[in-house]
Amino acid sequence: MIQAVSGAKVLVLGGFGFLGRHLVDGLLHSGANVRVFERNMPNDAQFARDVEVVLGNFVTGEGFDEALRDVDVVYHLISTTVPSTSNDDPIADVQSNLIGTLQLLRHMQAANVGRIVYVSSGGTVYGNPMTLPVPEGHPLNPLCSYGVVKVAVENYLAMYSKLYGLSATVLRVANPYGMHQHRIGVQGVIPTFIGKMMRGEPIEIWGDGSVVRDYIYVEDVVSALLAAYGDRSSGTFNIGSGVGHRISDVLKVVRQTTGLEGAVRYLPQRNFDVEQIYLDIRRAREGLNWKPKYSLESGCAHYWRLIKAKGDI
Amino acid sequence: MIQAVSGAKVLVLGGFGFLGRHLVDGLLHSGANVRVFERNMPNDAQFARDVEVVLGNFVTGEGFDEALRDVDVVYHLISTTVPSTSNDDPIADVQSNLIGTLQLLRHMQAANVGRIVYVSSGGTVYGNPMTLPVPEGHPLNPLCSYGVVKVAVENYLAMYSKLYGLSATVLRVANPYGMHQHRIGVQGVIPTFIGKMMRGEPIEIWGDGSVVRDYIYVEDVVSALLAAYGDRSSGTFNIGSGVGHRISDVLKVVRQTTGLEGAVRYLPQRNFDVEQIYLDIRRAREGLNWKPKYSLESGCAHYWRLIKAKGDI
Repeated sequence: MIQAVSGAKVLVLGGFGFLGRHLVDGLLHSGANVRVFERNMPNDAQFARDVEVVLGNFVTGEGFDEALRDVDVVYHLISTTVPSTSNDDPIADVQSNLIGTLQLLRHMQAANVGRIVYVSSGGTVYGNPMTLPVPEGHPLNPLCSYGVVKVAVENYLAMYSKLYGLSATVLRVANPYGMHQHRIGVQGVIPTFIGKMMRGEPIEIWGDGSVVRDYIYVEDVVSALLAAYGDRSSGTFNIGSGVGHRISDVLKVVRQTTGLEGAVRYLPQRNFDVEQIYLDIRRAREGLNWKPKYSLESGCAHYWRLIKAKGDI
Repeated sequence: MIQAVSGAKVLVLGGFGFLGRHLVDGLLHSGANVRVFERNMPNDAQFARDVEVVLGNFVTGEGFDEALRDVDVVYHLISTTVPSTSNDDPIADVQSNLIGTLQLLRHMQAANVGRIVYVSSGGTVYGNPMTLPVPEGHPLNPLCSYGVVKVAVENYLAMYSKLYGLSATVLRVANPYGMHQHRIGVQGVIPTFIGKMMRGEPIEIWGDGSVVRDYIYVEDVVSALLAAYGDRSSGTFNIGSGVGHRISDVLKVVRQTTGLEGAVRYLPQRNFDVEQIYLDIRRAREGLNWKPKYSLESGCAHYWRLIKAKGDI
């Protein structure tokens, strides 16, 4: 059922970000022609090799026309906010992420580009789940603006799909981790833990360490994004490991993997943090013929080998 | 359980609109002090009697500070769009209704106003229901931008409720009808039918007349809005008659009530129109101790008496 991406003309919005860099690598290896839409060129020019780059402005739509020319599919990976700070200014969150995505849809209609894969958020759209692992049909009760906007984007995509025939696949990605993550923001406890341990700084944990999350190694996210190319159902899929880990367990695995100890400071729990979540991934297993390859232990081990080889996160 | 609104200082956003005028009347009769926030004064000055008026701009937040001074509760009835045209420009829909509501919430926090009653849309937030009558827990799959924005506002209200202690009651109102409706837009088939019949113009029906809606007489909406004042559960409630009527049946009732015949033109069905919907209102019956008093027949009869007494809709 999975259609190969080889030879396709693929536009990646946010192709120099954390997930974007890995997706671009995966697309190039699969034989796709890759164009990246970004605000700025990356500092490390190697990531702009082998791809066409269109610089533009996601919020105003500047550059979209050029970026969308002759494109078969758009991968929309741009987010201008992260969950932990999105509540500081919900208006700015809406103005950038929601308005920007509506600009994109308008330009896609004009350019006759009818296929999009959108990276939504498995960790925020559900709020505090009533059942675990949480399936896609669970009510959407986000506790942060980041999640409210993701839900609104999903609803617009579903609406454009029903009314205008847009083919839109939504991946609700859990907590990904891997190389290149620390450069772009404040998400990702595993790179943050390892980075602080390597620099001899204390690790900070919000709450008592009992918070449970679904950590997914970035290579498994990329394989899901590639599998999503073949989806023609306009489906919505949870993409996670399907397993929950307490943050205290993550710390243990990271210590065992790296051999580094790392001091810990515990900070008060934040009210917008979901307490426990991990995703039911059966729909993606069946509908995308996809499954994660890495456990937390094997993902951390792979990640740590790459860090040691490079000498940096 | 129901707390009386008598003596309360009530701000009505959109108090000169269709529902707003009826709500203001109901509040005044209940002994509330009423302030209206609107963009402009009404053409018919009688509606500005007995209330304090603050003119301002919902989208920029201009006037909110003055409007919110010493207020106990905000009734938010403003919508700058209607379902049938909201898809023409979703960006404008978000820019006005979603951004405006976030401006309101920001100003409410600053003014220490902690209570809001929001009029959402029972007819659009669910999309095409999988079960009828549709309960509040049904998945939200809106088919128009109007509905997507209503869902986003509901999610922000729930988030502010959980994180900041805002007391927010959401009423998902079905298809209301009654006096003053035709002045404000293109919603409301019953006033539209009667108005066209009175003027001898042909009625237009989108589709074959089989579309089913939940029509609620405006007095029943007002009693629900007043009952919502006492809700401290930050609940979400369907407000409808609980009964579905085909549009062809509505035409029959209107013809019987008015004694007017009216020619009919059938137009192609619109793809953003939900096919069949009526609301499960059990939660409002229990949680708000509210129930509708009017059937379609008695509501139309009451409405028609008022029209004849006034000589106009």
